[in-house]
Amino acid sequence: MSAEVKVKRLNSKDAGFKETLLSSLSLPMADDEAIDAVVVKVLAQVKTNGDAAVLAFTKQFDRLDIPSVAELEISREELEGAYQGLSVEQKNALDIAAQRVRAYHEKQKIEAGCHSWEYEEADGTRLGQKVTALDRVGIYVPGGKAAYPSSVLMNAIPAKVAGVQEVIMVVPTPDGARNPLVLAAAWLSGVDRVFTIGGAQAVGALAYGTKTIPSVDKIVGPGNAYVAAAKRRVFGTVGIDMIAGPSEILVLCDGTSNPDWIAMDLFSQAEHDELAQSILLCPDEQFIDQVQESINKLLPEMPRKKVIEASLANRALLIQVKDMAEACEIANDIAAEHLEICAAEPRKWAELIRHAGAIFMGNYTSESLGDYCAGPNHVLPTARTARFSSPLGVYDFIKRSSMIEVSEAGAQTLGAVASTLAHGEGLTAHARAAEMRLKK
Amino acid sequence: MSAEVKVKRLNSKDAGFKETLLSSLSLPMADDEAIDAVVVKVLAQVKTNGDAAVLAFTKQFDRLDIPSVAELEISREELEGAYQGLSVEQKNALDIAAQRVRAYHEKQKIEAGCHSWEYEEADGTRLGQKVTALDRVGIYVPGGKAAYPSSVLMNAIPAKVAGVQEVIMVVPTPDGARNPLVLAAAWLSGVDRVFTIGGAQAVGALAYGTKTIPSVDKIVGPGNAYVAAAKRRVFGTVGIDMIAGPSEILVLCDGTSNPDWIAMDLFSQAEHDELAQSILLCPDEQFIDQVQESINKLLPEMPRKKVIEASLANRALLIQVKDMAEACEIANDIAAEHLEICAAEPRKWAELIRHAGAIFMGNYTSESLGDYCAGPNHVLPTARTARFSSPLGVYDFIKRSSMIEVSEAGAQTLGAVASTLAHGEGLTAHARAAEMRLKK
Repeated sequence: MSAEVKVKRLNSKDAGFKETLLSSLSLPMADDEAIDAVVVKVLAQVKTNGDAAVLAFTKQFDRLDIPSVAELEISREELEGAYQGLSVEQKNALDIAAQRVRAYHEKQKIEAGCHSWEYEEADGTRLGQKVTALDRVGIYVPGGKAAYPSSVLMNAIPAKVAGVQEVIMVVPTPDGARNPLVLAAAWLSGVDRVFTIGGAQAVGALAYGTKTIPSVDKIVGPGNAYVAAAKRRVFGTVGIDMIAGPSEILVLCDGTSNPDWIAMDLFSQAEHDELAQSILLCPDEQFIDQVQESINKLLPEMPRKKVIEASLANRALLIQVKDMAEACEIANDIAAEHLEICAAEPRKWAELIRHAGAIFMGNYTSESLGDYCAGPNHVLPTARTARFSSPLGVYDFIKRSSMIEVSEAGAQTLGAVASTLAHGEGLTAHARAAEMRLKK
Repeated sequence: MSAEVKVKRLNSKDAGFKETLLSSLSLPMADDEAIDAVVVKVLAQVKTNGDAAVLAFTKQFDRLDIPSVAELEISREELEGAYQGLSVEQKNALDIAAQRVRAYHEKQKIEAGCHSWEYEEADGTRLGQKVTALDRVGIYVPGGKAAYPSSVLMNAIPAKVAGVQEVIMVVPTPDGARNPLVLAAAWLSGVDRVFTIGGAQAVGALAYGTKTIPSVDKIVGPGNAYVAAAKRRVFGTVGIDMIAGPSEILVLCDGTSNPDWIAMDLFSQAEHDELAQSILLCPDEQFIDQVQESINKLLPEMPRKKVIEASLANRALLIQVKDMAEACEIANDIAAEHLEICAAEPRKWAELIRHAGAIFMGNYTSESLGDYCAGPNHVLPTARTARFSSPLGVYDFIKRSSMIEVSEAGAQTLGAVASTLAHGEGLTAHARAAEMRLKK
């Protein structure tokens, strides 16, 4: 019973509640400048020296002394071998997860408008947009202690559903340790090539290309602070998905749930990382007490209890609110990555939510089901960025080109308008280009 | 006839053509570090000192000595006054442009899937996505010599069509000079509030908020190198649209067009900026000669001939290709911001194009019609980023939340899968959260 933790309590009617809450959300800045300086150096060397730099950094950081980048590639046959070597139970679980993630993203491709469209006006002018998939995408997969096969599925499958021709995965294998589940997931998701490299050097290789590693158009996937800094630096040369912060869960509960379930859902975020944040909003003070009791009861049996304890002690909040409507308002301020609504009428409250990465409705929808196999993506906006960004999706692997075909008749009416506006901006060549198409 | 310029010629069959082309596209790095250092300081001061810092920098950079930020705000009445003060011709032109841009983006909102969706599985599990508009958006509009009312329409209208509640525009007014067309465009597009501030201080004010200026969720719109650096720095705190480089046009011509029209279309890009790039791809050597003659003939009558001359001399290319199919391949390598297909069968060639910000088809579709009033957005990906990014659109002002409601029956099948995968990743709390929902 040594692993006991008293989670910080707040009440929405306390003076200064909103300021206290918002300051609890913001994380202290990491040592960005020092990390950034290393990353700048690594990227510059990879850009200049290509394969040689990649080999040197892989030796330095992953303690792998390999004579050529080609030998760092894992063939599709080896990936399939990893899959075939799994237990039947693991194989089935991975199959079902991949199928469900694929089915959801296929629906998303249709519903989220990832198709070309066009319309014609009365004078024959035609306007629209053409949708094309990205040619080549790089997927960063963390290696070492935090090796997540589910992340491979969540990053690679939407790219393949979008129609990306070539998906290139990089995954560091410090000291040569390969994770068979990660390789099996790569095979199952249709990843085309895998290189066992990581860190800023892998990001640089994907962004600039080397003799062995082709340059990609976009890099997605989670990584440590060096990977994040490198992605930020190469943004513009290639596209990137997002810069993810520590994971977060916000649970809205009306007090009708099983407190053990709520406690375990808070744990399942806290076990990721000491900086992960778990918050409960509930109008029922007694229920909050019960959740605190469940936390103390369940914590000792958790293998990652040290991490959970640190995360809950430093970052978690149990907040008593006036009612569920107020809980929804506060949830919109928090704009959480994961939002669980554990309540008798979850959809009634979900209607009031504007900002959240994913909304898990009802007591049976534990966040962990969404993390692995419900189907929607588990790559979600963190650190309040759900105010303006979306889960990773098929729409991240397509882009649009405007299509404009002005008829001769259209050029007469539009030409006069463009001419007036262009002269107003002092851009005479713009005006003349339109005027030249006018009939005399 | 002093303004004559010999544009650089290339032929796709030359040895090393592709390398020459690609190196002609890449721009030398700007003095990023020096600019970045200033921007970091400005942002930090605005974050800490709010309104006072905004006033101090506005005094320093725009030579405006104003006692309060409130006095830097322009009321909706003043905006309407600016519109009413325009000539009838300008008013009509702006009206038509705004109507057409609105109509296109309303169509886009539907076609590009900016709506919520959901589906139900056999066991009652429901999955989908909820679409919501951003709450508040900031629009940066350059002031001074490059004041573009069309940019106001192109940035504000998609935000309003998306359903953004509050659009806040910032526009610097160095020495107090206000552009009535810009203010009129703001009124016409439904911009809610306008502050006459600019530079990194305006970006900081929008990102962090001050006592007078509310913080926004996303900042869009073009700006100089300081604005671009500031946007890159605040990315994560708020969303940003893109970091735009110098403008580009690529013309594919089969030799059946009027060479004067082609020359003027090349000018209309070159007149923006000495770093703007204009490229012609054509299989007909004689036609290329004619375009060069048209350039020399038309250049002297251009008010911005100095800028055009510098841009054409330094950055333009006239490239002879084998045939139009090869021109399309090369166009995909270039991934231009603006791509004109001036040919007898423009749609045949457009089919082959995978990468371009906007595709202008047919001889009547001058790029300048698209810049002002065809309807599609003129904010387009530059510097080869059309490989992975899209025109500004309604989709930039919405975001998605995954919706997951697992039924009790669904929790049984999914719970078993999640449990297996979570144990495989060593995340016991994730597994336990799923297992707790299993029936005994």
